[in-house]
Amino acid sequence: MYKKRGLLIVLSGPSGVGKGTVRKELFSQPNTNYEYSVSMTTRSPREGEVDGVDYFFKSREEFEALIEQDKLLEYAEYVGNYYGTPLDYVESTLEAGRDVFLEIEVIGAAQVRKLVPEGLFIFLAPPSLTALEKRLIGRGTETSEVIQSRVNKAREELEMMNLYDYVVENDEVQNACDRINAIVTAEHCRRERVEKRYIQML
Amino acid sequence: MYKKRGLLIVLSGPSGVGKGTVRKELFSQPNTNYEYSVSMTTRSPREGEVDGVDYFFKSREEFEALIEQDKLLEYAEYVGNYYGTPLDYVESTLEAGRDVFLEIEVIGAAQVRKLVPEGLFIFLAPPSLTALEKRLIGRGTETSEVIQSRVNKAREELEMMNLYDYVVENDEVQNACDRINAIVTAEHCRRERVEKRYIQML
Repeated sequence: MYKKRGLLIVLSGPSGVGKGTVRKELFSQPNTNYEYSVSMTTRSPREGEVDGVDYFFKSREEFEALIEQDKLLEYAEYVGNYYGTPLDYVESTLEAGRDVFLEIEVIGAAQVRKLVPEGLFIFLAPPSLTALEKRLIGRGTETSEVIQSRVNKAREELEMMNLYDYVVENDEVQNACDRINAIVTAEHCRRERVEKRYIQML
Repeated sequence: MYKKRGLLIVLSGPSGVGKGTVRKELFSQPNTNYEYSVSMTTRSPREGEVDGVDYFFKSREEFEALIEQDKLLEYAEYVGNYYGTPLDYVESTLEAGRDVFLEIEVIGAAQVRKLVPEGLFIFLAPPSLTALEKRLIGRGTETSEVIQSRVNKAREELEMMNLYDYVVENDEVQNACDRINAIVTAEHCRRERVEKRYIQML
């Protein structure tokens, strides 16, 4: 029996770029038609955080048991705490034909890219490219030091974005959300994916 | 001096699928931020058609002179009349950094793909894939003849869409327009394109 499988969407980017803010805004919109995969962590809940909504809060022992049982799609340790993505939820949601959205760190994204190469990987970037472009296209009144510092920053970003399919500049949260939604819509229209559906059906 | 170049967007698909209707709807929307490349033809204007808006109306001699001078991006002859895309307008608009939209027949699209492989090629498809999918996923009450006829139709479409980047089903004109706009937005975020801009700048 032919079944349509969902798309795995991964949002990542340098720390401090605003991934969490963009993700919260995406899921506060009524027309979001993909499912957020809640991450798991061993850190303590902060005030107002709800288990199962913001994170699944686990003990270190529980988390390490899941690592041993291969129950995490990706995980990493930061500042003494584990963070990871439970595999079962991702797998069952994709299998049911619904798209799954992960918002994770770049190390985790690299792990997911290896396991799910057909996923949709979006790099959230600071608006430095546009800023640089304006300076270079613009009136040319900038000092060469300012331009050089921008160029160095752009080179760093260029290296990081290498394993991603898309780069979304976080100039404004709403713009970034609009672009992410457009990317998901477009990706469902990509010939390779449509063709794959055809071929599976025929 | 670094300059940002526009994107060439090509909408094509089987005849009768509604390319013209979708294109008119796209360009009737206030937020369309790409330029329509008006085609050239040797056929007579129909009632209400305006030279330079619907088509550039040319004599056969004028059209053939443009062919000889390599002034057309693509052209084809249908039912005794020439149709084609003037090259100068496309080139100068892309050069100015604005996206250009062509709505052309599949033969012309194949010519453009060869000349501008980095263009964005969108295949407008009849909603037969979705119809077939519903039949296969659905209750299975269809007769095998009906399903077989759908499968044959899907096979034909599958062959035609081979040179395109995206497939947009024309289930409803507004949906098709929304998907095309999403594809253009997404394509501007593709890592290869953003990276190319970075590399040209740096």
